[in-house]
Amino acid sequence: MLAEIITIGDELLIGQVIDTNSAFIAKELNKIGISVYQITSVQDDRNHILKAFKDAEQNVDVIIITGGLGPTKDDITKKTIADYFNDTLVLDESVLKNIESIWKQYVRQTLLQVNKDQALVPSKATVLMNTIGTAPGMWIENNNKVFISLPGVPFEMKALIQNEVIPKLTERFHLPFIIHKTLMVYGLGESTLAARIESWEDALPAIVKLAYLPDLGRVRLRLSAKGFDKEKIQAEVQKQIDAVLPLIKDEFYGFEDENGDVESIVAKQLTKLKQTVAVAESCTGGKVAERFTSHPGASNYFKGSVVSYATESKIDVLGIPKEVVETYSVVSAQVAEAMAKHVLGMFNSDFAIATTGNAGPTKGDSDAEIGTVFIAIATRNGVYSEKFMLGNHRSKVINKAVNKAFEMLLKEIFKN
Amino acid sequence: MLAEIITIGDELLIGQVIDTNSAFIAKELNKIGISVYQITSVQDDRNHILKAFKDAEQNVDVIIITGGLGPTKDDITKKTIADYFNDTLVLDESVLKNIESIWKQYVRQTLLQVNKDQALVPSKATVLMNTIGTAPGMWIENNNKVFISLPGVPFEMKALIQNEVIPKLTERFHLPFIIHKTLMVYGLGESTLAARIESWEDALPAIVKLAYLPDLGRVRLRLSAKGFDKEKIQAEVQKQIDAVLPLIKDEFYGFEDENGDVESIVAKQLTKLKQTVAVAESCTGGKVAERFTSHPGASNYFKGSVVSYATESKIDVLGIPKEVVETYSVVSAQVAEAMAKHVLGMFNSDFAIATTGNAGPTKGDSDAEIGTVFIAIATRNGVYSEKFMLGNHRSKVINKAVNKAFEMLLKEIFKN
Repeated sequence: MLAEIITIGDELLIGQVIDTNSAFIAKELNKIGISVYQITSVQDDRNHILKAFKDAEQNVDVIIITGGLGPTKDDITKKTIADYFNDTLVLDESVLKNIESIWKQYVRQTLLQVNKDQALVPSKATVLMNTIGTAPGMWIENNNKVFISLPGVPFEMKALIQNEVIPKLTERFHLPFIIHKTLMVYGLGESTLAARIESWEDALPAIVKLAYLPDLGRVRLRLSAKGFDKEKIQAEVQKQIDAVLPLIKDEFYGFEDENGDVESIVAKQLTKLKQTVAVAESCTGGKVAERFTSHPGASNYFKGSVVSYATESKIDVLGIPKEVVETYSVVSAQVAEAMAKHVLGMFNSDFAIATTGNAGPTKGDSDAEIGTVFIAIATRNGVYSEKFMLGNHRSKVINKAVNKAFEMLLKEIFKN
Repeated sequence: MLAEIITIGDELLIGQVIDTNSAFIAKELNKIGISVYQITSVQDDRNHILKAFKDAEQNVDVIIITGGLGPTKDDITKKTIADYFNDTLVLDESVLKNIESIWKQYVRQTLLQVNKDQALVPSKATVLMNTIGTAPGMWIENNNKVFISLPGVPFEMKALIQNEVIPKLTERFHLPFIIHKTLMVYGLGESTLAARIESWEDALPAIVKLAYLPDLGRVRLRLSAKGFDKEKIQAEVQKQIDAVLPLIKDEFYGFEDENGDVESIVAKQLTKLKQTVAVAESCTGGKVAERFTSHPGASNYFKGSVVSYATESKIDVLGIPKEVVETYSVVSAQVAEAMAKHVLGMFNSDFAIATTGNAGPTKGDSDAEIGTVFIAIATRNGVYSEKFMLGNHRSKVINKAVNKAFEMLLKEIFKN
């Protein structure tokens, strides 16, 4: 089973927008055993789109199209799709209702003709209802090939892929069973981890594929297998997991597929224990808070955060004694620990995280080498901190520090 | 003049890597008047690569290839390029010297045969010297078509594009002048904006192309034109801008090409005025702070932020009177304004932003409808707020609220 992804839009071809949709779609298709043969970005141009459809149809079984479905007149994708299938556009009442309901609830302005026109779909298409936007998804089958057209807005596209496209493709085609198990490992670099598990890796059976997924101070190990004998495949993957776990015992902290990522594990455990956390952030600048609050339900365990970016705010707002800052510098274990203790009291939380460091590109208020980050964890019983050296690339330093903060909190929570 | 960008690599087609190279190359080509006709991502597969070359050659004048030039044995791009031109690979002494020098300086291990093989290039190719990596760029002309092959590592590719490819293309072809002007507009949806400027849009001369670029509550309008008479083109675009500006006067806040995005304008203006800002965030959960601190130099104007996520933190940490919360509810103009005033004092800043709202998916501590967000701006002279209804998709509500917060701050700063 092969697929091609066609992304439509002049904004891609003048480099104004980076195509992130294709990687998302490719990942989701691969999970259900459909390989992506090619990704093609074309202009908002009728003939070019027609040519891309024709070429794709010769190479693959499934063609996924994104973009070019907005209400403005420079969007010509839908008309071109209808032309390609010698079809006409007809008004879909259910889509119109969805548009009217979204309009009534959120826009509260007169529904214009261009908006109503978004309810026009090729008569041969099955509508994939887009409940969070006005451009409908469309599924058209022709000569045993499946064409799927989706809006280009990433969150609308993602919802349609997950809720409509993947279930429908799984139902429509006899796809092999695929299993992925992702082991989360921290505290080891990619090459150290590779050396540690080398003999296990060399002995892996051909059916089990291994991938290292390094990401800002973490490495995930993904084991994949596919085939039509589900039980055999599951057993083989389990056998390999049982063999590798003793080798990475101290650095393994869960299966991403079952437990979610580190943040989800933290969230579940805090909710279960009815405990709370607060954060004092310097170099991470709000990213730890943002990572907590991007999950719904965070108000159950996340009390809040103080981002004390300027040194004087650490003194004024977090009440760090001026002498501590002067004696040890603002990037120090002492300051990190004082921040964590103070914010714990401020928010009356059970746990607190604090970060202070120098993410570069210049040294700022401290002489600490670029990439130096101190992270402290406070509980009602005490406080401690760790020092990390996280490289010299600003956004990487910040993101690695956020990862480390969550890993330290995870360890602390499971101590209890 | 048309170009196609071909990116080679299985990692793109399984969605492990997002292709950022193409947008960079497309932007650089557009600047010198070469339009990108198509972007194609193909597998590390000889036949697929050959097919992509053949297709591209039929449509465009310049083919830029990235990826597949690393030292490992699964990279077959270079052999395929040689085959395509009925050519053979020969050792290029200058490339070998470059590899040896990089090796000596940075790697300090024995040079392996696979590394030496990187100095093999098709005999018909002109080498584009990659002084910061071991994979050479290559320029091959055939039947009046130019093929340019570049390494896939972004910073090596970028250096070669800027230092070698763009100058050589400008010298080789007689290229038109190209101009893009991007108007930043807020407070209007895409379709309302389209209706507002419809008669202007309909009267645009063929030479000026218009595109709507909507993004979470903002719309950018891009005008583009190209041709050989630079002055005429500039004048025509300027004329159209002069005609559209009165129609969007209150919603226009600058040209992105000259001023950067809203955040950059805010940052520059605060730095210039030597003024500072602090933030109190509820529903945006740290994202406003994060948006400020993701730019180096933020410590000049960004004092800090309090993320008061739980209702009790608004009372305990931000000192909002309990009666205000009880009388008006936590999602209210009164609470937003009290938060902004308090955090202004706490951080002793010139401006303060506060956000409180309900991003969903459930109602939480307030009866406010999902999507309701109040944003307040405080200055040393007073405070005011606005209410927004931002839809029912959690991350979209949050991101739109962050955008609105920056836009309100922008307006406030330029009032002074």
